[in-house]
Amino acid sequence: MTTNTPKPILALTMGDVNGIGPEILVKALAHPQLWAACHPVVIGDIRALESVQAFAPQCPPFRVSGDLDFAEGSITVIQPGPPMPAMQPGRLTAEAGHCAVEWLKYATQLAIDGQVAGIVTCPLNKKGIQLAGYHYAGHTEIISEMTGSPESRMSLFSSQLRIVHISAHIPLAAAINQVRTDRITETIRIAHEALLRLGLPQRRIAVAGLNPHAGEETILGMEEDREIAPAVNQCQMEGIECTGPYPPDTIFLRAMRGEFDLVVAMYHDQGHVPFKMVAMDEGVNITLGIPIVRTSVDHGTAYDIAGKGVANEGSLLAAIELAAQFAQSRSDATSIQEKA
Amino acid sequence: MTTNTPKPILALTMGDVNGIGPEILVKALAHPQLWAACHPVVIGDIRALESVQAFAPQCPPFRVSGDLDFAEGSITVIQPGPPMPAMQPGRLTAEAGHCAVEWLKYATQLAIDGQVAGIVTCPLNKKGIQLAGYHYAGHTEIISEMTGSPESRMSLFSSQLRIVHISAHIPLAAAINQVRTDRITETIRIAHEALLRLGLPQRRIAVAGLNPHAGEETILGMEEDREIAPAVNQCQMEGIECTGPYPPDTIFLRAMRGEFDLVVAMYHDQGHVPFKMVAMDEGVNITLGIPIVRTSVDHGTAYDIAGKGVANEGSLLAAIELAAQFAQSRSDATSIQEKA
Repeated sequence: MTTNTPKPILALTMGDVNGIGPEILVKALAHPQLWAACHPVVIGDIRALESVQAFAPQCPPFRVSGDLDFAEGSITVIQPGPPMPAMQPGRLTAEAGHCAVEWLKYATQLAIDGQVAGIVTCPLNKKGIQLAGYHYAGHTEIISEMTGSPESRMSLFSSQLRIVHISAHIPLAAAINQVRTDRITETIRIAHEALLRLGLPQRRIAVAGLNPHAGEETILGMEEDREIAPAVNQCQMEGIECTGPYPPDTIFLRAMRGEFDLVVAMYHDQGHVPFKMVAMDEGVNITLGIPIVRTSVDHGTAYDIAGKGVANEGSLLAAIELAAQFAQSRSDATSIQEKA
Repeated sequence: MTTNTPKPILALTMGDVNGIGPEILVKALAHPQLWAACHPVVIGDIRALESVQAFAPQCPPFRVSGDLDFAEGSITVIQPGPPMPAMQPGRLTAEAGHCAVEWLKYATQLAIDGQVAGIVTCPLNKKGIQLAGYHYAGHTEIISEMTGSPESRMSLFSSQLRIVHISAHIPLAAAINQVRTDRITETIRIAHEALLRLGLPQRRIAVAGLNPHAGEETILGMEEDREIAPAVNQCQMEGIECTGPYPPDTIFLRAMRGEFDLVVAMYHDQGHVPFKMVAMDEGVNITLGIPIVRTSVDHGTAYDIAGKGVANEGSLLAAIELAAQFAQSRSDATSIQEKA
């Protein structure tokens, strides 16, 4: 029997080898639903995977390859970059930071070259990559640089809440300076495009205010009138279904109750605080505004529980499934025609 | 039979008469549990109450008095301040703003004089009170001025989450400037005092960071190291059980899951966003750091539903009960010895 469902190839990066990346990878790869959604290839270190494989007995065996070849019953692992030193679960090391960056760069290049349909990233440690001599703040900056995408946006998606942020990993004082009409307008457009790609029947975007009570008619702040409302108006004229600015303290609840399909947040924690409240173990971080599909777990390296077998793979599993969904919607998706 | 349970007298202010204040008052006063907790007296306009009494048939009748006298089977209403013009539900008017302020001032004075054990306030509209010529930003500023309490703190309490804020109704950019060691230290002390008064068995206070990931070891901001950590250290030396700064995006979830009894938030929406997610209809706003007991609903005038009978009295009911709880814990609580 031959089915006609093409499955996208997704590159999964291991991230910081001393964090929970290896463990959540083997746990996620043990789920049959993952195999129904994509062809995974791990970019990382096979010894790290094998050292935690006991935590997921259902996970198929791993097999190192220098290329994107797939063999029934095993998981392909590509090991680019510098030789990986011995794992030290829970330890912040420059070596782990170095490998995490090189693995990410390799995976990103595969996506740029069209060899994979998307990438899914396990957490790295910002301090670790800086110890290794890189100037990047995190994954997104590396991917933005490699793809030439200065307008990337950090987003959080779950079954209950979708949030796109104006800015991400910068101090709050700096984030306030990013609340400008041009940046907000571009964010709304990017959010609208994402909803279109997901094929949602409704695409109602709500834009949050910056200040308490969304400025309360300019008594508590001017950014709503001066920067946010003009962006909403501009996007409405472009035919995008967006409204706001709304008071930040109720906009997320309203979205959860079904009034909106996506919320544009004015800074990292405005979106992250409510998101974590409702999607702790199934939240996905997705980078929008870049020319490749990239999703990620919405948590960090969790050094405190690394190597203990207690990490939850829910977010990684959801990230892989969402990447597959986005990848499927691309007409040029890199995929393997399924044969049985 | 004579019981020995003294019930505190609480003054309930009507707030903006064109908002949902009158309606939630009659609805709350219809609950027997309220009468078990306190002796209420309404400071406002009897015509407004009677105009919505049909929405709460179980509410006892109202009776105007010039003084704090109580009569079995009726609710005392005191009508200080200017004559109240006709109600215009949903309309922003200077007259409504004027009355709201005068009623609040009257109730606050009763509390200062020890004639009532606490006050519970229905919402007013900031624009309305400014139309009436007042310079106040809201209730708290009026109460702070009258009680000579520059160090008052806005707090949100529910069964699941308790939050005390460093600052409240100011633009976000101004709020960042309030993140200073002295102010945070005082906030932690105020929070600790409140937990003591509530008689909670545990008083674990968690202090939030300001920046994404609590500054991530100073990569994403300096306030955590420079301002917040020294305040936590100082309070620990004073014997207060407090820890932090923690990443803002998980601290509230951790509190909800039982790890902390109270969270100190660095700005209005850092606390309000998660609070509204979990306590939409039972949240209470309580002003700490002032010499009187004052609680409030945690929502606004809701002009859009005023006069329609659909407003939810849950927050007001919870506010009255929490005020009674705080009032009971004062040795000098103004109360009426119960006789039956």
